[in-house]
Amino acid sequence: MERVRVIQYGCGKMGQVTLRYLVEKGCEIVGAIDTDPALVGRDAGDVAGLGRRLNVPVRADAEAVFAECDAHVAIVAVGSLMDDMYPHFERCARHGVNAISTCEEAFYPWTTSPALTSRLDVLAKQHGCTLTGSGYQDVYWGNLITTLAGSSHCINRIEGVSSYNVEDYGIALARVHGVGLTPEAFQREIAEATALPSYMWNACEWLAAQLGLTIASISQKQVPILAQSDTPSRTMGRTIRAGEALGMSAVVTLVTRQGPVIESQCIGKVYLPGETDRNDWVLRGEPDTFVQISRPSTVELTCASVANRVPDVIAAPAGFVTSEKMPPAAYRAWPMHFYL
Amino acid sequence: MERVRVIQYGCGKMGQVTLRYLVEKGCEIVGAIDTDPALVGRDAGDVAGLGRRLNVPVRADAEAVFAECDAHVAIVAVGSLMDDMYPHFERCARHGVNAISTCEEAFYPWTTSPALTSRLDVLAKQHGCTLTGSGYQDVYWGNLITTLAGSSHCINRIEGVSSYNVEDYGIALARVHGVGLTPEAFQREIAEATALPSYMWNACEWLAAQLGLTIASISQKQVPILAQSDTPSRTMGRTIRAGEALGMSAVVTLVTRQGPVIESQCIGKVYLPGETDRNDWVLRGEPDTFVQISRPSTVELTCASVANRVPDVIAAPAGFVTSEKMPPAAYRAWPMHFYL
Repeated sequence: MERVRVIQYGCGKMGQVTLRYLVEKGCEIVGAIDTDPALVGRDAGDVAGLGRRLNVPVRADAEAVFAECDAHVAIVAVGSLMDDMYPHFERCARHGVNAISTCEEAFYPWTTSPALTSRLDVLAKQHGCTLTGSGYQDVYWGNLITTLAGSSHCINRIEGVSSYNVEDYGIALARVHGVGLTPEAFQREIAEATALPSYMWNACEWLAAQLGLTIASISQKQVPILAQSDTPSRTMGRTIRAGEALGMSAVVTLVTRQGPVIESQCIGKVYLPGETDRNDWVLRGEPDTFVQISRPSTVELTCASVANRVPDVIAAPAGFVTSEKMPPAAYRAWPMHFYL
Repeated sequence: MERVRVIQYGCGKMGQVTLRYLVEKGCEIVGAIDTDPALVGRDAGDVAGLGRRLNVPVRADAEAVFAECDAHVAIVAVGSLMDDMYPHFERCARHGVNAISTCEEAFYPWTTSPALTSRLDVLAKQHGCTLTGSGYQDVYWGNLITTLAGSSHCINRIEGVSSYNVEDYGIALARVHGVGLTPEAFQREIAEATALPSYMWNACEWLAAQLGLTIASISQKQVPILAQSDTPSRTMGRTIRAGEALGMSAVVTLVTRQGPVIESQCIGKVYLPGETDRNDWVLRGEPDTFVQISRPSTVELTCASVANRVPDVIAAPAGFVTSEKMPPAAYRAWPMHFYL
């Protein structure tokens, strides 16, 4: 058995945590890529806070890294949309290196970016490697729900709510969530202007595919969440007045030909005192089942889900293989190469 | 594709619900077995409340039923312990019929009843069929936890609490839970006298096996839950006085060689106003993850889990194959034979 050799492709916040997890699980880091001038040239072990050097420098020239090492898998933590991800996935495929990305759209890109995904699928098959997406949503918007569905006789409706505090992510994110807008301005600037599918869109399609259901319609709306009373916002540097938006909910409604409806919402807002992140789902039918995850540690759960997918992506057939076709990611008690 | 042919072996409360689920999922009921004189001779469709006759009578002579039909699978809802279940599993195996049982110990009987389980394993292999156990614990004490573990980097400790109201189950169950006993009487009559492993014992061993951990030690203790104030009990027909036991918790502690500890408790007690059934787990490590199932519908979830296992048990290799070796039970949107 040989150890799993990894290229860490993107060494920002998520890449650093994933790199540490993989080293702690016995992987060998053979390449590290990032274009951030603050990272380029530094040792990957230092960047990831390992407490020891790996003697692998972070390099900006991704093509050179791929040409100069023989990796089993690349962990691609670069972008959130397939448009941005295409050249990176393409590079992995062209070098015949399996890739797992934290890219949210890559979790199920078959209908939001079908042309790009199919091209990558062909390329990966030509080079005998597998491309996939994973992260928090793989478990908490995906396999958690389908595992519980395995105890349902009949499902009529699946409802999900996932929420986060926009105060944790800076003003750019707060603005696209419409924080501080009046209902009229929200309608004009957000509800009618936002064309991009939310990450829940891809998760709902993943769920329908895993459950063997076919989509009759899918739609999304942006709904403002209005302040009931004046609420201070650290990020906005002012108080959100009663009646202005604290943020929004992106609500995705997927209707299946077979009957079941999946309605999931992703809430991003300025939290009130005492509010915490949550991930609550209900499966309605025979019977009704309620599951609640309180205060999920999204960053760690994303990076561990990606790391735990390493043996799955190596074992999967060639192509762009989304994770609803794989078993749920498993806990890796042993070094990764014991699972090959 | 031919429809799945089923023998319903045990037509009591659980058997009736499972039978209805299987008929609604396109299975054919070819045999029905029960020794209860109130059921023998009645039509299985009537017994299960299908609203239509199946023209399959409930029969007490199990051997004759097996001899006179060709079933793919038997659903065995008869007992909770392997000692009681042995002749029934043995009959299924001898006739080469796959079997899924609601028997709680059968969920992971390898160490609590190793001799019986090995004998059944050999017999099933000789006759080319699979025997297994499933039910509520397959998902809520099993795959729910291992699915979440797939998003953990490191697990140090798994803690679970599952609770039920002894008022729902009659005086026999209340007595073995020590309801109404003083702490001294509880110690003598329950804590020191109860030799049987609780159902959590088997679930903890299932978890350790699925996670690839080996057991260093496992133990169980019965802990009284004492009333803080006088609490009326319908089942006991009297008020439990402050300081007497409302019931008990069976606490199982499993220590693994690799470090992680699994500590699960099964609480059965007289509920206070506002208390409801629950199933709460926490995975402690990197990160900590908390999951809560509120008011689980245990009967429906048990029967649906068993029904959804039908394609898995047909696909599994011959032998006594516990479900940690199978994928998680999946939701069956289509008739069962579409999954073969």
